[in-house]
Amino acid sequence: MPFINIKITKEGATAEKKAELIKGVTDLMVSVLGKNPQTTVVIIEEVDTDNWGIGGLTVTQRRLQNH
Amino acid sequence: MPFINIKITKEGATAEKKAELIKGVTDLMVSVLGKNPQTTVVIIEEVDTDNWGIGGLTVTQRRLQNH
Amino acid sequence: MPFINIKITKEGATAEKKAELIKGVTDLMVSVLGKNPQTTVVIIEEVDTDNWGIGGLTVTQRRLQNH
Amino acid sequence: MPFINIKITKEGATAEKKAELIKGVTDLMVSVLGKNPQTTVVIIEEVDTDNWGIGGLTVTQRRLQNH
Amino acid sequence: MPFINIKITKEGATAEKKAELIKGVTDLMVSVLGKNPQTTVVIIEEVDTDNWGIGGLTVTQRRLQNH
Amino acid sequence: MPFINIKITKEGATAEKKAELIKGVTDLMVSVLGKNPQTTVVIIEEVDTDNWGIGGLTVTQRRLQNH
Repeated sequence: MPFINIKITKEGATAEKKAELIKGVTDLMVSVLGKNPQTTVVIIEEVDTDNWGIGGLTVTQRRLQNH
Repeated sequence: MPFINIKITKEGATAEKKAELIKGVTDLMVSVLGKNPQTTVVIIEEVDTDNWGIGGLTVTQRRLQNH
Repeated sequence: MPFINIKITKEGATAEKKAELIKGVTDLMVSVLGKNPQTTVVIIEEVDTDNWGIGGLTVTQRRLQNH
Repeated sequence: MPFINIKITKEGATAEKKAELIKGVTDLMVSVLGKNPQTTVVIIEEVDTDNWGIGGLTVTQRRLQNH
Repeated sequence: MPFINIKITKEGATAEKKAELIKGVTDLMVSVLGKNPQTTVVIIEEVDTDNWGIGGLTVTQRRLQNH
Repeated sequence: MPFINIKITKEGATAEKKAELIKGVTDLMVSVLGKNPQTTVVIIEEVDTDNWGIGGLTVTQRRLQNH
């Protein structure tokens, strides 16, 4: 019955990659903690780089600096 | 002062249905726990079916299998 | 498959009240949005009044002021 | 290593304002709690006014009433 | 820079199991999405079985029924 | 009406420090985005160092390594 919320920056992760991630995280909940996969919920949230900050700068700002 | 976050798959819930849900949840906080409705906040997040997994599959994949 | 996260201040809600709230919210997801109750997950988080702020004051501070 | 999630109604906050908010919150984590800014993550989520309720009404409904 | 929040029922997961889960999820973010592990944050929240509901019943209630 | 959720490792932040943080974040929502402080909610969650991972290790493990 675990619930997993994954937040990543929005930069074009494909449906296939997201499905692979959901499968992988679900498998881990089973193999590590013995959870029931049928009630394991995984939600992926993709966040605009203007809305994600680390080190006091948005990801948008950090990428501009790195150019 | 409760805060309620509702996550559902994004599939066309109307503004009317969402308003009805917000009203219903707020009323419950009052009737069950005696909370003040004026400071009860309810947020609904609608998540793409590619980004929601259960049982190791995305909702998109599950619906394709059920066809 | 909805997921609902309820945050309230920690002040002795009984297991019975919490069960009643979980039942009520689950019923709403069914009656308003037609969701499947079997995959509706509700989680209640109880937060210390020192850790909850509104209007720039913690709930602990607000209650002291109201005495 | 703190993680801060800010939810606001979606109403046109500019990238500059969001960057200013992220900088301000990060600085607070450093000045108040002595946290390392380099591992302080701030995420802003902008929520549609149809999906945000307070006092049992959506923000959309409240604004219509106030006209 | 991903952020992953895992919610499970509180029932004695050991520090070793939790560390194994954190390692596994971090590795997945790297292998599936090419994320930087150094800025991947994973937080595990353990929730009392009175506070976790599924199918309209708390986990505490469901376990009593299954006895 | 903003909602801010701050997650930090549990290591003895005092009630005074937490109140200062809540005040500071609320003031920022007012000064940067013009939000109403009276409906600004800030919640601080303190997470055990066994339950917080970064770089694939729990904070507990990282601190042991640094000794």
